[in-house]
Amino acid sequence: MTTVAAYAAPAPKAPLERTTIERRAVGEFDVLIDIKFAGICHSDIHQAQDGWRPGTFPMVPGHEIAGVVSEVGSGVTRFALGDRVGVGCMVDSCRECDNCRAGLEQYCLNGGPTWTYNDTGKDGEPTYGGYSEKIVVDENYVVRIPDGLALDVAAPLLCAGITTYSPLKHWNTGPGKRVAVVGLGGLGHMGVKIAHALGAEVTVLSQSLRKKDDGLRLGADHYYATGDPETFEKLAGTFDLILNTVSAPLDFAAYLSLLRTDGAMVNVGLPEEPVQIVLQSLFGNRRSLSSSGIGGIAETQEMLDFCAEHGLGAEIEVIRADQVNEAYDRVQASDVRYRFVIDTATI
Amino acid sequence: MTTVAAYAAPAPKAPLERTTIERRAVGEFDVLIDIKFAGICHSDIHQAQDGWRPGTFPMVPGHEIAGVVSEVGSGVTRFALGDRVGVGCMVDSCRECDNCRAGLEQYCLNGGPTWTYNDTGKDGEPTYGGYSEKIVVDENYVVRIPDGLALDVAAPLLCAGITTYSPLKHWNTGPGKRVAVVGLGGLGHMGVKIAHALGAEVTVLSQSLRKKDDGLRLGADHYYATGDPETFEKLAGTFDLILNTVSAPLDFAAYLSLLRTDGAMVNVGLPEEPVQIVLQSLFGNRRSLSSSGIGGIAETQEMLDFCAEHGLGAEIEVIRADQVNEAYDRVQASDVRYRFVIDTATI
Repeated sequence: MTTVAAYAAPAPKAPLERTTIERRAVGEFDVLIDIKFAGICHSDIHQAQDGWRPGTFPMVPGHEIAGVVSEVGSGVTRFALGDRVGVGCMVDSCRECDNCRAGLEQYCLNGGPTWTYNDTGKDGEPTYGGYSEKIVVDENYVVRIPDGLALDVAAPLLCAGITTYSPLKHWNTGPGKRVAVVGLGGLGHMGVKIAHALGAEVTVLSQSLRKKDDGLRLGADHYYATGDPETFEKLAGTFDLILNTVSAPLDFAAYLSLLRTDGAMVNVGLPEEPVQIVLQSLFGNRRSLSSSGIGGIAETQEMLDFCAEHGLGAEIEVIRADQVNEAYDRVQASDVRYRFVIDTATI
Repeated sequence: MTTVAAYAAPAPKAPLERTTIERRAVGEFDVLIDIKFAGICHSDIHQAQDGWRPGTFPMVPGHEIAGVVSEVGSGVTRFALGDRVGVGCMVDSCRECDNCRAGLEQYCLNGGPTWTYNDTGKDGEPTYGGYSEKIVVDENYVVRIPDGLALDVAAPLLCAGITTYSPLKHWNTGPGKRVAVVGLGGLGHMGVKIAHALGAEVTVLSQSLRKKDDGLRLGADHYYATGDPETFEKLAGTFDLILNTVSAPLDFAAYLSLLRTDGAMVNVGLPEEPVQIVLQSLFGNRRSLSSSGIGGIAETQEMLDFCAEHGLGAEIEVIRADQVNEAYDRVQASDVRYRFVIDTATI
C-alpha cells in the first residue's frame, strides 16, 4: 500500500479538497503510474454531485489520466519503467464475457467494467481516479501514449477522444460522409477534430455562433446556430451522422429531421434527467437514434495512435489542483476552451 | 377513362359503401389490372378514420392488390396480358432523386412517393386503392406474383410482407441471429414466417399466450407473454433485432432492455398519437431505435420471389366486399388470423 495525495469530494456537492488515499501494492500484472496530468470531464461533476446515482464518498474523480510508469509487477509484459501511458474510464472488467472478448470492455456483460473511480474493484476496495499523484492499474487497462503527443493534451483523449472516436468509426465516418457535431465543448471539439481527420464534411451545430471561429479552426467545414430556426429548415435531410455531445435536453424531433435516409443520431452525453423523444420523428427515412459509451481498450490505443499520426491533441487550459472547484464552476457555465487539465504536480 | 365499381369511405369514420370511380385511360407505360384480391391493412382503417392526417374523401382504401393484367400500354415492356401481378403502397415517385435511383422509392426525397390511395397522382387526380374492380398503374410500380403463390395469399405480401421483409433484411437477419417479433397480427405473422425462413431464431412477444400455438406453427422458436413481467427479466440482453409491429404505445425502455449490444429495435407500426421514449434506455450497449417503411419496388419483387421459393403466403380470411365494415371492426378488436382479403369479384 502506498499513501498518495489526492483531491477528493468528501460528500455529494461538497467542494473538492486535498486529502490522502491508499493505493494498493503493485501486483503481478500491475503498473504503477506517476500521474502527470488529469483532465476534468463533465461527468466528474455529474458524479461528484450525485447527478446520475448516489456515489461513494470521499470521491477522487478523474478518468483522463496521463503519466509515466514508475514500477511494474513481475508478470507485466507490455510496459516498462519510463513508458508514457494513459488510463481512461475503466481499470478492469470481467474479461470473460462476449463483449470483453470482443474488445468491448466498456459494455462488459457481467455488471459493466470497473470504473476508474466511484466504483469498487475486484479486491472489494473503492476505486479512486486521476486527481491524485499515483495510480495502480492492471496492465491490460493501460494504454500507451505515442511519442508525438504531449502528456497534457493527450490526457483528455482518454475520455473525450475515445468517446467521439469510437462512434465516428462505428458509424463509418470518412470521405463523402456528412457529420454534424452538436455542441462544441470538451467532447464536441474532439469530435470535430477527429471527424475532420477521418475525411468527413463536418458541421458544428451550436447554440450560437459565439465559437464559430474556433470551430472552423478546429476542422469544421460549416458552423450553424441552433438558436436560429432557419438552421433546421436549411439543413433538413443533410447528415449521415449526428454526434450529439450535449447532455442537456434537446428538441430531438428537430435534430432527427436533419438526418438523411439511414442516418443516425448518436448520443454520447448522458443527461441527468430522463429525456423524452417522440417516436414519430424516426419515421420516414429509416433513421436511427442510438448512443455510444467510450470505447474498448484496443480501440482506445487505436485512437491515440490515430491522434498522434494526425497531430490531434485536446485544446486545454492547464490548472493547479487548488483551482479545481473554480474549474468545476466554469465547466458548468460552459466557460472553458475546451478542457481543463490538472497539473498533478500541484497536488 | 373507365368507370369501375369500388368500395369507398364517403367521409372520415363513415362506413364504407359501394360506389363507382373513374380509372384513367391506359397510357403508354401503363398496365390495366383486373383486381382479384385486396388485403385489408390496419393502415386502411387509420386513414379512413383520419387517424394520421386529414384524408381525401371519398376514399377507396387498399394497397395489398393482386390481380391479372388485362391491357398494356404501347410502351410497356415488362408485362403482358394474363400476367399475375401485384401493386403495393406506391404507384409512382419522382424517379430522379437519390433514393428513387437507389431503389428506395418509398423514401422518395421529392415529397415522398405517390401513395396508392388517399394521395394525388402526377395528373392531379386523386388516387384510389384496391377495394375496386380494376386499377391502372405505371409498369414500374407493378410487381410480378410468382406462379407458386396463389393470388389471395399473395395480396397481403404487398404491404405486410414487404414491411417486415425489408427491415429483416436491412438489419441482417439470418442464421445465428435472434429476432423478436412484437405482436402477432397481420404484420407480425409475416415477420415470423420470413424471419424463420431467413434462418433466424425467432421469438414472438405478444400480450398473452392466446396465439402461442399459431406462433409456433408459423415458425417461431419461442413465444412469450409481455403481460408477464418475468418475460423481461428472462430475456434481458437477448435480441439482435426487435421488430415491433404494434402501433399502440409500448414501454419502450422495457423492450430496449431486451436488446444485445448493438441491437436495434425497429418500429414498423406507426402510432396515431405521439409516443414518448426515455433516452436513457438506449445507453449501455450501443442500442438503436429505428423505424422502417415498406420497401422499394425491386425489393418488393425480391420479397415475392423469396416467399414463393419458401412457400410463404399470408394466413387469410377471404371476405365478400359487403363484409368490409364488419372486417374493420374485427381488425380493431384484433379478431383476425391474420389478414382479411376482399374477393373483389363480390364488389
